[in-house]
Amino acid sequence: MENKYWNYLQLVKQQSPLVHNITNFVVMNNTANALLAIGASPVMAHATTEVGEFVTISKSLVINIGTADEYWAAAMFMAADAANETATPWVLDPVGAGATSFRDEILQALLERKPTVIRGNASEIIALAKQNTTATRGVDSTDSTNSAIDAAQYLHQTYGSVVCVSGETDIVVDGEEITYLQNGHIMMTKVTGLGCTASALIGAFIGVTENTKDAVIAAMSLIGIAGELAVKQSVGPGSLQLNLIDQLYNITADQFNSHMKISKG
Amino acid sequence: MENKYWNYLQLVKQQSPLVHNITNFVVMNNTANALLAIGASPVMAHATTEVGEFVTISKSLVINIGTADEYWAAAMFMAADAANETATPWVLDPVGAGATSFRDEILQALLERKPTVIRGNASEIIALAKQNTTATRGVDSTDSTNSAIDAAQYLHQTYGSVVCVSGETDIVVDGEEITYLQNGHIMMTKVTGLGCTASALIGAFIGVTENTKDAVIAAMSLIGIAGELAVKQSVGPGSLQLNLIDQLYNITADQFNSHMKISKG
Amino acid sequence: MENKYWNYLQLVKQQSPLVHNITNFVVMNNTANALLAIGASPVMAHATTEVGEFVTISKSLVINIGTADEYWAAAMFMAADAANETATPWVLDPVGAGATSFRDEILQALLERKPTVIRGNASEIIALAKQNTTATRGVDSTDSTNSAIDAAQYLHQTYGSVVCVSGETDIVVDGEEITYLQNGHIMMTKVTGLGCTASALIGAFIGVTENTKDAVIAAMSLIGIAGELAVKQSVGPGSLQLNLIDQLYNITADQFNSHMKISKG
Repeated sequence: MENKYWNYLQLVKQQSPLVHNITNFVVMNNTANALLAIGASPVMAHATTEVGEFVTISKSLVINIGTADEYWAAAMFMAADAANETATPWVLDPVGAGATSFRDEILQALLERKPTVIRGNASEIIALAKQNTTATRGVDSTDSTNSAIDAAQYLHQTYGSVVCVSGETDIVVDGEEITYLQNGHIMMTKVTGLGCTASALIGAFIGVTENTKDAVIAAMSLIGIAGELAVKQSVGPGSLQLNLIDQLYNITADQFNSHMKISKG
Repeated sequence: MENKYWNYLQLVKQQSPLVHNITNFVVMNNTANALLAIGASPVMAHATTEVGEFVTISKSLVINIGTADEYWAAAMFMAADAANETATPWVLDPVGAGATSFRDEILQALLERKPTVIRGNASEIIALAKQNTTATRGVDSTDSTNSAIDAAQYLHQTYGSVVCVSGETDIVVDGEEITYLQNGHIMMTKVTGLGCTASALIGAFIGVTENTKDAVIAAMSLIGIAGELAVKQSVGPGSLQLNLIDQLYNITADQFNSHMKISKG
Repeated sequence: MENKYWNYLQLVKQQSPLVHNITNFVVMNNTANALLAIGASPVMAHATTEVGEFVTISKSLVINIGTADEYWAAAMFMAADAANETATPWVLDPVGAGATSFRDEILQALLERKPTVIRGNASEIIALAKQNTTATRGVDSTDSTNSAIDAAQYLHQTYGSVVCVSGETDIVVDGEEITYLQNGHIMMTKVTGLGCTASALIGAFIGVTENTKDAVIAAMSLIGIAGELAVKQSVGPGSLQLNLIDQLYNITADQFNSHMKISKG
């Protein structure tokens, strides 16, 4: 049977979309390698003098505030504005939302620019919606994924974004219907920045289709399935980091279709 | 027999201390992965607007000047001040001490803030103590570890820090008694930034105990032993880098206790 | 038979030249590890307060504009000036040349400082020579290597640089004679920044010989051959990234001499 999500991956391979990343120092290498592995074409650039120009030649933009400072924040605002002016879809990864007032200010300014997609863990999505006062402990998730559904729906209603809450079960919110994705493995939380990689892969998929929700589902399923396959070959998070890249590169239609676990509610 | 150093690692796994790193671009990914592998919770953040706030929610701080510039140096000073105000223990990794006057100025300003721990190679520790004029060649060690003992004792007496000189034999100075650790493998010097990783692991251990000397010994022994085990599985420094992460994740009490080589003098 | 290119690698191992890199965030870790693997001694430093001083103690300088911003560009100009004043050879890696006017301005300013070596893909070399209007799509190569020969010769004649156009066939231009190198493997294009690594290796080789053309040939052959050997052990670009480091570390004279594919025209 045809799997439309798999087909989106084929579009990425065929079109090799240029994905402009303004992301954090920790994950840049892995993010670039993950995008290359699935056939996309990554660019990392943050100079305020050029981000606008890079957005105009890119198919999508990924903004990740993991190691942002004042300069990088300014570049992110400019890039988001350029993306909106050119109707370029963009992803917001709100790393560490709620941890400091600086992050919350940057994130509020980015939210008001209406990201096409927001992807974070439960703590981050909740902090973003300011619906409770759970303190974020840096980049770790302390809330269960389910408890973030209300926050995701609030963000979707307020900013129009497709919202993905990643966790043991990934949740995709785009209106009333909720999509649940149950791929992935707990060891993936011991590799730094796989959430950031997920956001970058979303960037690739929204670069080849206007069906944003399907693009998010395809990207999250892909990294979850590739992660499951990679864990089987890994004795720890060190080998997992590289095996995940190899699996993203080698994954087959059979593997993708037989492993994908999706449900709606 | 109970090994107290091993027990500190169990505390790290149980408490998952948040370790705030202001470190260099070269090692951020590996440092984060090493901290995750032992059960700690890494945050990398350097914006002057938020470093103070991050220190207040962290159990420890690691400052590494490897790729510092004026902005990052200012962030380091602010973070060290915040650590001192909140009695948060912090580690100084003086990468390239003695190589340029810029580094020496930053380091002097950090020393005066009295780091809880200083960890560097022999060249760096000697340069830090300004006890000789050996030119540091960037981040490589050219002095033997033993010749740095005087420098380490001077730094300890002047700034109150526990000082670790890493090399073929690691030396921990905290007053008159000197601790010698003889784990590790020469191939580890061919992987960039394993000294930086060691400093980050020290950050995790001082986040779970006030016995700073024991924390340093536990961290240095852990990376040395994990490195020895990893070298046996590696054909070169590329595979060593990832096998080390896997070993940090998988190391057992038996492995730790049977490999640890410690002596006092 | 004696292979002079192999002998240059032995000089790198014997002299362990200090190579000062001002490079991009994506590749810093791999670049440092590749330099360590072949026996060189890498330093990454970009603070305008210290780059001049670092150049004076280094054997060579590598400037890579991949993630440059205004501050980093200023540091690059200062470092290039210091290199010229001290007769320190330096490499320019013009990542993304032609993609934005900011990059073109930085690159023009660097070109006018007459790099000892320029290494880029065909699109970048052509953009640098402004000989056509092919839009560069970020850091990917879209032009065939051969079409860049004219551009390379123009750059050589105008700025005196040895110019290397990397691609399926690597081309080295230093006057009328053109050298063709046919090592490497297509999978290497799926690992981020191997071109940047090549530039860094060139930095190591020009740090041990004044025969710049031979140094470039030796470095490009080395990474191409190590890459071929590594691909045989790799199931994807994730494992290739680390196997390449292992091969750079372990390569033998027999492997180097029997695999090297060089021709002149």
